[in-house]
Amino acid sequence: MRLVSDRSDVQPFRVMQMLDLVHRRRREGRDTIMLCAGQPATGAPAAALDAAEQELRASALGYTEVLGDRQLREEVARWHSGTYGVQTPADNVVITTGSSGGFVAAFLAVLDHGDTVALSCPGYPAYRNILESLGARVVDLVCDEATRFQPTADMLEALPAEDRPRAVIVTSPGNPSGTIIDPQELARIARWCEDNDTVLISDEDYHGMSFGRPLATARQFSDRAVVVGTLSKYFSMTGWRVGWLILPDELLTPVENLQASLALCAPAISQVAGRAAFSEKARTELDGHVETYRAARRVLLDELPKIGFPRFAEPDGGLYLWLDVSHVTDDSEAWCHTLVEEIGVAFAPGVDFDPVHGHRWVRLSLCAPEEETREACRRLGEYVNRRS
Amino acid sequence: MRLVSDRSDVQPFRVMQMLDLVHRRRREGRDTIMLCAGQPATGAPAAALDAAEQELRASALGYTEVLGDRQLREEVARWHSGTYGVQTPADNVVITTGSSGGFVAAFLAVLDHGDTVALSCPGYPAYRNILESLGARVVDLVCDEATRFQPTADMLEALPAEDRPRAVIVTSPGNPSGTIIDPQELARIARWCEDNDTVLISDEDYHGMSFGRPLATARQFSDRAVVVGTLSKYFSMTGWRVGWLILPDELLTPVENLQASLALCAPAISQVAGRAAFSEKARTELDGHVETYRAARRVLLDELPKIGFPRFAEPDGGLYLWLDVSHVTDDSEAWCHTLVEEIGVAFAPGVDFDPVHGHRWVRLSLCAPEEETREACRRLGEYVNRRS
Repeated sequence: MRLVSDRSDVQPFRVMQMLDLVHRRRREGRDTIMLCAGQPATGAPAAALDAAEQELRASALGYTEVLGDRQLREEVARWHSGTYGVQTPADNVVITTGSSGGFVAAFLAVLDHGDTVALSCPGYPAYRNILESLGARVVDLVCDEATRFQPTADMLEALPAEDRPRAVIVTSPGNPSGTIIDPQELARIARWCEDNDTVLISDEDYHGMSFGRPLATARQFSDRAVVVGTLSKYFSMTGWRVGWLILPDELLTPVENLQASLALCAPAISQVAGRAAFSEKARTELDGHVETYRAARRVLLDELPKIGFPRFAEPDGGLYLWLDVSHVTDDSEAWCHTLVEEIGVAFAPGVDFDPVHGHRWVRLSLCAPEEETREACRRLGEYVNRRS
Repeated sequence: MRLVSDRSDVQPFRVMQMLDLVHRRRREGRDTIMLCAGQPATGAPAAALDAAEQELRASALGYTEVLGDRQLREEVARWHSGTYGVQTPADNVVITTGSSGGFVAAFLAVLDHGDTVALSCPGYPAYRNILESLGARVVDLVCDEATRFQPTADMLEALPAEDRPRAVIVTSPGNPSGTIIDPQELARIARWCEDNDTVLISDEDYHGMSFGRPLATARQFSDRAVVVGTLSKYFSMTGWRVGWLILPDELLTPVENLQASLALCAPAISQVAGRAAFSEKARTELDGHVETYRAARRVLLDELPKIGFPRFAEPDGGLYLWLDVSHVTDDSEAWCHTLVEEIGVAFAPGVDFDPVHGHRWVRLSLCAPEEETREACRRLGEYVNRRS
């Protein structure tokens, strides 16, 4: 008897496999420097923990409203409006179970079976995996140094007619690239989408973390864009599983209906904690974390060339550095596993992010403390030196 | 420009809309007796709250392993094995974001686009909504008093060839019916599924709550069955959003891959709290809650006939009573809204659960305290009396 469907050949998400391996090693007491996941080493801000602690016994923590805790929706709206000088009403914010939950609901609301979605390559693997499991068709926007690993309106315009997408996903700061799309280019992409009956889905999961470049939201250029956000990255609340969608009016009811059946609601305690993550006190603490990412980035920019890895995308923001390792391996997945085993350093294999060229790339996270990042570089340098 | 897909005409989940209405009324300080949702009025057991409180500052609460916190998987496996005298290895337990998250992952692992799934009608509306949004085809197993509102192997055998399902979902204790499938009948259904290349998905969300009848797990009869469970019902942790799948070996990797991309992991703090919900101390507290559901059930069984509502499915377990209101309305959704407005009592409209006959039924929850349940009956009796 057959149990598995023909379409269930979903790719593994190797970053999460690597993270599981780190979890197992740490359970076994084996030292491991974790540069594989976009997971802040810090926990939630103190104000969020305080709020969670108070709420634990203050309510039964039942289902929240389907669209999310009203106060949290208002905090997200206020933060988004204030940061970008846009009008984002709380009514258009839907709280989801991580941005993952937001993507699934948005895809189902926007796409019909067989619809085409354009993605940057390299890009976040879960998009491709979710879309393929839902029966959508993925078209790659192949990005390299020439456009700082980000898609452009020209790339969309150059797509052949049969690849004209129903939706385009952009991620800025990028994953795995860490690069930021220039606001003018994002405006051009938004305009192209409006002109071509294409839904712009703007993954803004890494907002709040720029190392200098200006960072725009898609809603500055189009109120037809779908914005995705999360408490996992800048807000340092990965395991709490809270994200959001900022939606055009016409998508609110479809997403509410989908969310009600797909998820019921996002976790209650996490939503209460999340409210407090937007407070001034929390924001000061979180801005401090960004300085540690900046420090880790500085270490990588300085050390990687010295130990023989001079080719990478220079991160403008976010949590990653995309590193070319083609001179030492053409199987980055095997190489990453060897590194964990031999030097206790975990990177993310590039094949997740780029099915074509990713076997020659890896993704490094900026989340580890500066000294651990430096130690990882030292071990890597020693390792490649020993083998050359 | 069109944003919404053609397939996004997902039905609203009216129970959740009613619950949102209750939330809004309570925010406005308007008294409302909530009999619409399967949400225990109690919170998580004290042991779970203690565990959550301790964990808040003990770890960074990052992503857990994709398959779930190992200790929680072991607790679920031990509970399931011990309760039913089966061998359920922790390796076959996958922690999901509520059972909702489990359903989505299981459906995507098992079904191809256009596959047929047989569901009891009346039944849980989210199945139908999720399945339709994923492109599956739903076939109703129409259930009434004759089979105590539960499907039988004979119904499956009687399906015409073109409706032979790829998967069957059974829910026992039922939602909305509260009835339990006899173990012998569940065995026959499991056998039929094995013989007909059909995946049996056993929704065991309401296990732990029987008012006397024997309650079996599908795994007693088939190790090819997919079992779905949750911390939301018996364990009284609705808003924590933790559920699980117990899977045959062959589905583990597909579900792990899907879960990694669809969800990353279930909420971390909820998983830690959940471990403690299986402790003896917590179980004693939870068994006490079952006695309150039993008391609420007794009130409904006694009072409903007296106030002119003699026709209902008698709950064998779980959290609901399915009530025939055809003599007072043929639009149960409008009727429920009128009741909330006029007497401050919230029921779940039957149209969610049965698209054909549900306009003449409503679902009542057993979750409210005995006295509130009695007061709801009093108000309802007075209301119908006033209008007759």
